[in-house]
Amino acid sequence: MILVLAESAIELVPREIWSHPAVASDARRRGKRPGEILLDRARHHPAMAGLEDGARRGRPDIVHQVLLVFQYSLLNRRGLGRVYIHTRGDYIIQVKPQTRIPKNYNNFVSLMEQLYALGRAPPHGDSLMELHRGSLAGLLEQLGGRWVVLHERGARRRFAELGAALLNSVVVVGGFPHGDFSNRWVLEKAEAVYSVGDEPLDAAQAVCRAVAAAEASAGLI
Amino acid sequence: MILVLAESAIELVPREIWSHPAVASDARRRGKRPGEILLDRARHHPAMAGLEDGARRGRPDIVHQVLLVFQYSLLNRRGLGRVYIHTRGDYIIQVKPQTRIPKNYNNFVSLMEQLYALGRAPPHGDSLMELHRGSLAGLLEQLGGRWVVLHERGARRRFAELGAALLNSVVVVGGFPHGDFSNRWVLEKAEAVYSVGDEPLDAAQAVCRAVAAAEASAGLI
Repeated sequence: MILVLAESAIELVPREIWSHPAVASDARRRGKRPGEILLDRARHHPAMAGLEDGARRGRPDIVHQVLLVFQYSLLNRRGLGRVYIHTRGDYIIQVKPQTRIPKNYNNFVSLMEQLYALGRAPPHGDSLMELHRGSLAGLLEQLGGRWVVLHERGARRRFAELGAALLNSVVVVGGFPHGDFSNRWVLEKAEAVYSVGDEPLDAAQAVCRAVAAAEASAGLI
Repeated sequence: MILVLAESAIELVPREIWSHPAVASDARRRGKRPGEILLDRARHHPAMAGLEDGARRGRPDIVHQVLLVFQYSLLNRRGLGRVYIHTRGDYIIQVKPQTRIPKNYNNFVSLMEQLYALGRAPPHGDSLMELHRGSLAGLLEQLGGRWVVLHERGARRRFAELGAALLNSVVVVGGFPHGDFSNRWVLEKAEAVYSVGDEPLDAAQAVCRAVAAAEASAGLI
């Protein structure tokens, strides 16, 4: 299963709010410049009111949760999975399967800030994570041009069927807190759109069930 | 499904290390006294070297991850689940199903510190979470005296069978980062001990699959 977390709400603090007190004090506290820290709704909420599309931005916790669910899964540990993070503003984060994502959120944030600063992590030796410019369309093309989407309005499948369908697919999940894909074509050109249950699930919940279904299908659980 | 996260690695900083620089500076930075903040391996590692059983302490992120997986699940949202946190040092944290756990880890830590300070959260109105003294044995007795355990050395069951077995059970999962239950009787007196896959899983991974299996069994996914 290749998981693509799309339009993920992770980015460095945009220039237009560098001088906002909520941002400046957070950066100073952490000994960094405002442009070097991740935008975080939990810390920078007062500064985000005027940001375009602000409700869908500043949620690195979504990426953290999904990476924890995926990287520590049996699917990934058995070499049957790979995850790519496509971000708002068109960056692609590649994560090698053996990458142990920090379980502590603050350590994860520091790792992501290093990644944005250097384009790779760790700074030396074999890179485990890499960041480069890239569009969602380009990534999906690179991954073979065929994908399925997990979406609240998708078709319901029995759990076992869903697992079989996802195990060998490129699976796109939205990495944003609210609303829908800005890239409408992701849904329109998908080979299939599946829902997981009858209610909207956040990204980590959807990925948890997709991975469990694929693992059950592969006989891992 | 009633989930009991047992011997969870969450506690306030113990008195013996209040004066350690790593603790004192963290408390000062957060405007709190050392005895009011959660012990956190990611922040207080230098202070924990001499702590008894230190390798199994100071991991509130484990409780956070499990609560996120459980509280935002379809199982819980449909009223088919309930979670209790039993902590190291014998506290019991009760969490009402409608409790929306903060997705941001730092906000979660603040909520837990309020809970330890006041015994409840939020401070006024209907409480959503409550903390009180209590043993694991007392809790399991209160919940009917019959339980199953998820454990790496448990019996493997097909995913569908596991779901059916867990859906209407009290399910105990270890809330500690390493090692095994200190309460050996938890395993010895359990009605059944199940494993999820052939490799050890961290608590959140085990709970993610247990919940997905129970949901599939209940026809929710």
